[in-house]
Amino acid sequence: MMAFKTDIEIAREAKKKPILEIGAKLGIPSESLLPYGHDKAKVSQEFIESLAGRPDGKLILVTAINPTPAGEGKTTTTVGLGDGLNRIGKKAVVCIREASLGPNFGMKGGAAGGGMAQVVPMEEMNLHFTGDFHAITSAHNLLSAMIDNHIYWGNEQDIDARRITWRRVMDMNDRALRDIVVNLGGVANGFPRQTGFDITVASEVMAILCLSKDLTDLQTRLGNIVIGYRRDKTPVYCRDVKADGAMTVLLKDAMQPNLVQTLENNPAFVHGGPFANIAHGCNSVIATKTALKLGEYVVTEAGFGADLGAEKFFDIKCRKAGLKPAAAVIVATVRAMKMNGGVAKADLGAENVAAVQKGCPNLGRHIANVKGFGVPVVVAINHFYSDTDAEVAAVKAYVAEQGAEAILCKHWANGSAGIEELAHKVVSLAESGASTFAPLYPDEMPLFQKIETIAKRIYHASEVIADKSIRDQLKAWEAAGYGNLPVCMAKTQYSFSTDPNLRGAPTGHTVPVREVRLSAGAGFIVAICGEIMTMPGLPKVPSAEVIRLNDQGFVEGLF
Amino acid sequence: MMAFKTDIEIAREAKKKPILEIGAKLGIPSESLLPYGHDKAKVSQEFIESLAGRPDGKLILVTAINPTPAGEGKTTTTVGLGDGLNRIGKKAVVCIREASLGPNFGMKGGAAGGGMAQVVPMEEMNLHFTGDFHAITSAHNLLSAMIDNHIYWGNEQDIDARRITWRRVMDMNDRALRDIVVNLGGVANGFPRQTGFDITVASEVMAILCLSKDLTDLQTRLGNIVIGYRRDKTPVYCRDVKADGAMTVLLKDAMQPNLVQTLENNPAFVHGGPFANIAHGCNSVIATKTALKLGEYVVTEAGFGADLGAEKFFDIKCRKAGLKPAAAVIVATVRAMKMNGGVAKADLGAENVAAVQKGCPNLGRHIANVKGFGVPVVVAINHFYSDTDAEVAAVKAYVAEQGAEAILCKHWANGSAGIEELAHKVVSLAESGASTFAPLYPDEMPLFQKIETIAKRIYHASEVIADKSIRDQLKAWEAAGYGNLPVCMAKTQYSFSTDPNLRGAPTGHTVPVREVRLSAGAGFIVAICGEIMTMPGLPKVPSAEVIRLNDQGFVEGLF
Repeated sequence: MMAFKTDIEIAREAKKKPILEIGAKLGIPSESLLPYGHDKAKVSQEFIESLAGRPDGKLILVTAINPTPAGEGKTTTTVGLGDGLNRIGKKAVVCIREASLGPNFGMKGGAAGGGMAQVVPMEEMNLHFTGDFHAITSAHNLLSAMIDNHIYWGNEQDIDARRITWRRVMDMNDRALRDIVVNLGGVANGFPRQTGFDITVASEVMAILCLSKDLTDLQTRLGNIVIGYRRDKTPVYCRDVKADGAMTVLLKDAMQPNLVQTLENNPAFVHGGPFANIAHGCNSVIATKTALKLGEYVVTEAGFGADLGAEKFFDIKCRKAGLKPAAAVIVATVRAMKMNGGVAKADLGAENVAAVQKGCPNLGRHIANVKGFGVPVVVAINHFYSDTDAEVAAVKAYVAEQGAEAILCKHWANGSAGIEELAHKVVSLAESGASTFAPLYPDEMPLFQKIETIAKRIYHASEVIADKSIRDQLKAWEAAGYGNLPVCMAKTQYSFSTDPNLRGAPTGHTVPVREVRLSAGAGFIVAICGEIMTMPGLPKVPSAEVIRLNDQGFVEGLF
Repeated sequence: MMAFKTDIEIAREAKKKPILEIGAKLGIPSESLLPYGHDKAKVSQEFIESLAGRPDGKLILVTAINPTPAGEGKTTTTVGLGDGLNRIGKKAVVCIREASLGPNFGMKGGAAGGGMAQVVPMEEMNLHFTGDFHAITSAHNLLSAMIDNHIYWGNEQDIDARRITWRRVMDMNDRALRDIVVNLGGVANGFPRQTGFDITVASEVMAILCLSKDLTDLQTRLGNIVIGYRRDKTPVYCRDVKADGAMTVLLKDAMQPNLVQTLENNPAFVHGGPFANIAHGCNSVIATKTALKLGEYVVTEAGFGADLGAEKFFDIKCRKAGLKPAAAVIVATVRAMKMNGGVAKADLGAENVAAVQKGCPNLGRHIANVKGFGVPVVVAINHFYSDTDAEVAAVKAYVAEQGAEAILCKHWANGSAGIEELAHKVVSLAESGASTFAPLYPDEMPLFQKIETIAKRIYHASEVIADKSIRDQLKAWEAAGYGNLPVCMAKTQYSFSTDPNLRGAPTGHTVPVREVRLSAGAGFIVAICGEIMTMPGLPKVPSAEVIRLNDQGFVEGLF
């Protein structure tokens, strides 16, 4: 058996350069970098503002097939492609999301990429990093406290305590807080009511931070948050309880993108991390836009498979931020194709070309969907040691039939040297000017029709069903001026359908919309199709039980 | 009317030096400083360990009379004295506490010193600073989540859900969270039970961090936390739910002291901030000890007046950390003497020598108390513009009668130039070797007798009363091996008695102990004498309503 190094072992052996040197590669002067230790820094707002006149680099999206337990390696490929582009002489910047702290104490987790394609410092990125998520938690909960305080002192806004939709957040997996009663204990403590906590990444403040173009935009969006309703059903905004200014103050540093580096000392922005279900699941607009001013190429990713991640990246982030992706990479693995073809995880080690072929239509539909947005596509086959040549050939042949190319990538094992071919292909696609990117639907389309459009054109469902109350709610929001918002779909990431066990490329299924929510600050309507967990729990044996500092002061058990 | 600059205006005009230069003054190499921006840094653990063999500088405690609404300026004097000592050629380091974020959004607050005697950067210190409090919040709440998770998955430890004493924390003034029911919502969410949130500074994790000598000690103490009791009444420890290792990982950076600077570019460690009521109210042991290795003089302070602050500094922090204070400064103001003499706040502007004389016994008792610990004392009269020469002379005369000296200090207006005389006096006291410091009571004294000793010798009470259940609880803890712990008194800071309106130097009062709590990790027994608020609320018009970023990007309304 071969002895592989673990991701964390590789990360610890990284020859990191001082972050000021990494910044210098991008032309960021040292006084414009606010260091956090020697290997992390925030880029100053003044510097970002000074970039306004510059031309933009080319934006590359890395997306994937529907995730399977076999793993697809989307972040690994994003990081690897960034290194690969730098290797072939392009000034490239990686833009990925920050990790949530809470889940790391549940399941072994974390990591920003893997193998020889990682972003470092890994430990800090999986712990407090530069404190952005803590700032978001504080800002969110300040608003919560101000709502209850407003009611306590007389409720001038006539907030209906039964209709407060704004909850509290914590960056922790804590199921005990999902459903709670607060304000108990009598006169001094307030009016009892039922509410709960979500995990911080599910906060609308997180989505807002990731979609805001600057601090002024941030404050406006925070003020737009609908925190609940009055007895007369009119919405109560964050600005009605005067929390938007103080929340902005709490978020002023968190709004500045974080610069770190890959194992190959190339620059990476790691900033923001909204949930990919009830939010749009992409890194921050400000990081992406800053990277586009500094690099010739910006490689970024979006949460989950392309049905959720790429669609929301295109229809929410790109639409709202005015971004024009030049090309997209769809990450697939031979193993995941096999699982889509019906092979159990335990049997993935054996060659099974027929199963690979049977699973490929999942990939095929993602290719067609992304092309449908006018963005040229290349498939990256993220190589595993167990893949056979015949299996790889089967994927390549299938992809060729779809009018695209699949390239075998060995960045996990070899870093940038293993992904040169993909890098060249991405450059040729991007420089061809072939992208004719356009969102899937126009702003003016009615909200329910937007949901139907996504369900039919992206998921290949035959219909969308929703109770009258949901349709009425959507109409009420249209009447209130929210009809032009995009829709943020919340459904299982494991299938094109709403059934997580339905792999491959299903057609003719029904998409039931169970609930709709207004994120007026972030600027989208969430359509919830299935159970969405906004506060995870810890497993029976949480990884926290074994996480500790070892004698060398290294963190054990986190990875 | 004279136009004074506000503290924040002065702070913004500060000519800060790069924090690496400030560190260099103390001989800290740049690679041993982990910068947070250009004006804050953490000192690395390795560097701190490397100091082990060095001799210690002299430790100076700044304490005060009982606080009045007139203000006494304890932190201002601490910072001013640090600058003054540097001015007269002594290498001096200031050690103060970090500010809690939550209360800043309630009342106008914050500040680290005032006038020309401040520590900067002020805005960051009153917001997220280096993230220490967020780390403490995370570590505390991870334990909370692991307790409920343990019960959820079968409760192997047989934790009695009615007897869980470990709550959750948030760095926020949020009365709605004081008393809550968690785990609602059915089978998937757990077993409902009543609990609540405290503010982060009230967390035992905060007290532990401030009393731990290193990361190993920290983990041991975290493991020692009693989180509740089993059905058979035996204690359940943090380590029984295996949270201590992961909590230590979350706290590893927070354990490193934060270096900032005064307005005069002298070094200041700002680290830790335990509540001065249910905890001991001093900055961290690790910061104080590191400063003692680096400076000839270390000037530190303790929360509230000397009856609470100095007593706990001596009996908890110094006893447990093996610190030997060389001298103490008691801060008083003419205005506060007048208030103790019965003058209302509105009438403080008018000269009133008789009232000053009438109020001086409050100061006199603090002088005697501190001397009782064997520590030489000097009184600093923190000068206000409204003080008259006759009033100042009255204080000086009174203090001379007590066998001490009172020195008029104008550091608020003039910085170090205004406090030279005090600095010289402190040096002469410290270098005289007059200190014969010893704690008030021996470790072996029974717990209730420790409470009586403090109440009678420090507060001049005639008796301590407590229900049988409280006395029985203390005996039970003695039987369980906790009898050698010091006692952490929790009572009003406004009086020697438990009645906040009883100013001056009362005698013959009764101290009722309402409740006792075991902080087995921090290593003390809390005796609660009166109402102690561990989760504040916001006022009717919280300052958060006006806190905002102005057009220059500065924070308005926070100060």
